[in-house]
Amino acid sequence: MMLRLLLFVLLVPSPALGLDNGLARTPPMGWLDWERFRCNTDCVNYPDTCIGEKLFKDMADEMSSGGYLEAGYEYVNIDDCWLAKERGPDGRLRADPDRFPSGIKGLADYVHSKGLKLGIYEDFGTKTCAGYPGSEYYLQMDAQTFADWGVDYLKLDGCYSDPHQYKDAYPAMSFWLNQTGVPILYSCSWPAYVVGAGDTPEYPLIAKYCNVWRNYGDIQDSWDSVSSIITFYGDDKGNFSDVAAPGSFNDPDMLIVGNFGLSRTQERVQMAMWCIMASPLIMSTDLRTINDESKALLLNKRAIAINQDALGVQGKRISKNGQVEVWTKPILPKGSFAFAFLNTASDGTPRTVSMKMADMGMTSANGYSVEEVFEGGRMMKLLPNDTMTAQVNPTGVFFGKATVM
Amino acid sequence: MMLRLLLFVLLVPSPALGLDNGLARTPPMGWLDWERFRCNTDCVNYPDTCIGEKLFKDMADEMSSGGYLEAGYEYVNIDDCWLAKERGPDGRLRADPDRFPSGIKGLADYVHSKGLKLGIYEDFGTKTCAGYPGSEYYLQMDAQTFADWGVDYLKLDGCYSDPHQYKDAYPAMSFWLNQTGVPILYSCSWPAYVVGAGDTPEYPLIAKYCNVWRNYGDIQDSWDSVSSIITFYGDDKGNFSDVAAPGSFNDPDMLIVGNFGLSRTQERVQMAMWCIMASPLIMSTDLRTINDESKALLLNKRAIAINQDALGVQGKRISKNGQVEVWTKPILPKGSFAFAFLNTASDGTPRTVSMKMADMGMTSANGYSVEEVFEGGRMMKLLPNDTMTAQVNPTGVFFGKATVM
Repeated sequence: MMLRLLLFVLLVPSPALGLDNGLARTPPMGWLDWERFRCNTDCVNYPDTCIGEKLFKDMADEMSSGGYLEAGYEYVNIDDCWLAKERGPDGRLRADPDRFPSGIKGLADYVHSKGLKLGIYEDFGTKTCAGYPGSEYYLQMDAQTFADWGVDYLKLDGCYSDPHQYKDAYPAMSFWLNQTGVPILYSCSWPAYVVGAGDTPEYPLIAKYCNVWRNYGDIQDSWDSVSSIITFYGDDKGNFSDVAAPGSFNDPDMLIVGNFGLSRTQERVQMAMWCIMASPLIMSTDLRTINDESKALLLNKRAIAINQDALGVQGKRISKNGQVEVWTKPILPKGSFAFAFLNTASDGTPRTVSMKMADMGMTSANGYSVEEVFEGGRMMKLLPNDTMTAQVNPTGVFFGKATVM
Repeated sequence: MMLRLLLFVLLVPSPALGLDNGLARTPPMGWLDWERFRCNTDCVNYPDTCIGEKLFKDMADEMSSGGYLEAGYEYVNIDDCWLAKERGPDGRLRADPDRFPSGIKGLADYVHSKGLKLGIYEDFGTKTCAGYPGSEYYLQMDAQTFADWGVDYLKLDGCYSDPHQYKDAYPAMSFWLNQTGVPILYSCSWPAYVVGAGDTPEYPLIAKYCNVWRNYGDIQDSWDSVSSIITFYGDDKGNFSDVAAPGSFNDPDMLIVGNFGLSRTQERVQMAMWCIMASPLIMSTDLRTINDESKALLLNKRAIAINQDALGVQGKRISKNGQVEVWTKPILPKGSFAFAFLNTASDGTPRTVSMKMADMGMTSANGYSVEEVFEGGRMMKLLPNDTMTAQVNPTGVFFGKATVM
């Protein structure tokens, strides 16, 4: 009896086993339409910006030809509003046929032909946030549909459901994704709704079942939004930073670099902090019209290397003094760090920020070779008792890298 | 007796006569150090950015050689922190001798040699906001000192004093400025402190004694600050917009274009709205390092022409629908308007904003030639029953000009 039960457990996959797709060994990188394009379904009057296959094909073209894929951005992700209003007669999800005439399968083929991967959006509840058909009673079928279409990434939202269901619900979709045998990166909105309900998520459980997970509200096109996310990550309630590791990362939402709401200085803050926080780098901007400076920032190889560091450790805020914060992130080679001096004040003039290397945890007697990340170029050798000093602009950042010598 | 009294009134100038300097027939244009450079008095460690004569000479150089003076920016203004800690043995104000080795007279000569004018800062109270000697018991002497030095513009702040004094205090300085016989543009912080104390200023009285007046808190380097000022001007409590006229203008504080806190889109909002609001265009940025796009915006001739329109009428918010506002400003030729469609939302994607011309007050049966101001170029002819439509970016503006035909 015991043996038969054991065999049963071994042979029949169970949600208790967790997600097993080998993906997201470093934070995923890609593009998602939501922040910039929202839910505009009027392709007659807005053919270039509506949620339809042209938008995603255009972005795939830009990502493959514009250096984004080469830099690591590989996922082209669809958010809400891609669905037909009803499931098909076979119960299957269908893309809106007018806006996605090739279907998701056709779009996936196109995206794959460019060397990219396709992501899609669904919602655990009975409807998506925008009111399209939800997955609650169709998890198995929907997982298989996504696999059949060649989808590589699923963002599963939580509208029209009860957060108390999630401990069973999100693992169930993890199970069904495993069952397809196709590796599909699994992005869960699970903790975001738990936080929204005033509770602290069980992060280790979430990390077992999800590759990435949103744990804060949707990002908006503003400095207020970016800085509130950074504060949430700095406060690190429930120590969620400790859960981040290869295969499982906290997701502070999309990069809004290239849009309307951030200054050049603030765009650097978002890029630096998303790298320090080992966050997914999911752009949401119009790559057809992005300005050169924002594009160069998104493609900055030294910054991306810190985000993609193989240790997969999430940086932490180690000091907060008024409106000046210091963050550090351990990186390879072991004993090295990326760090950020962040100035959230808007009082006009740069501040001089200083911290002793040892106080940042940099205690190697051999010292460190320290460089500024965005511009690159070796700056100086500093020993543990030396003080790192930088001028930091208002709503700005000094993004540094200290390589152990 | 009556005759003698009348003669007395006619011969001896009195504060009751108001300011009489013939200045500010259109909103003043220039530069002021405060928002960008604050009160850094450490010229040893920060020789290029401290409050000292080098900073103002550098800016005068940039203004005369960089096209700013040609565009209309003529005042180089010094804010707080220029003073020595104590008055001289003769009771006179003195510039800090280490930071202003040429004295204010020498600096004024330099600025004048470039075809520019010099502005200075004092405070009505016993001290300036930063703690330097105030003017309260030295108004006559200080007015004469400024005149002797060749000062062309005085900003008189209100720290270390009681707003209940202002009805007498600010007119008194107006009187003493008149008495010098030298035309000195007079900027009063009077209503800002009245509003700060929760009261509504007597704007017609203020307009009688001041060329320009601050009526809201100091601008900071952020969209939040800019948008809160626009809201205050849109709410127009006490109908202060009606008081604006040649010689007397409301002052929403400096342009922060070129600094760290505004996106390109938001910089256009500030420039458009400051033009619509007939505001002084007082830059506060480092003209030595400003980026080309921000510089071009500050020098935009079509925008400046609307700000400098000879009617001197302040624009008003005529509609507010959620986060979309419509503003209009009458300009010459009579019956013409500048207008703004303002979108304060940060929700990622542009909005389509429409309004019938007649609903914007544009009722001429001959119709209007409408153009976008920043880029220029005729757009279309619209009649009163036609609808003006534009795409407006998040935290963005459509800045239009409708010339009566």
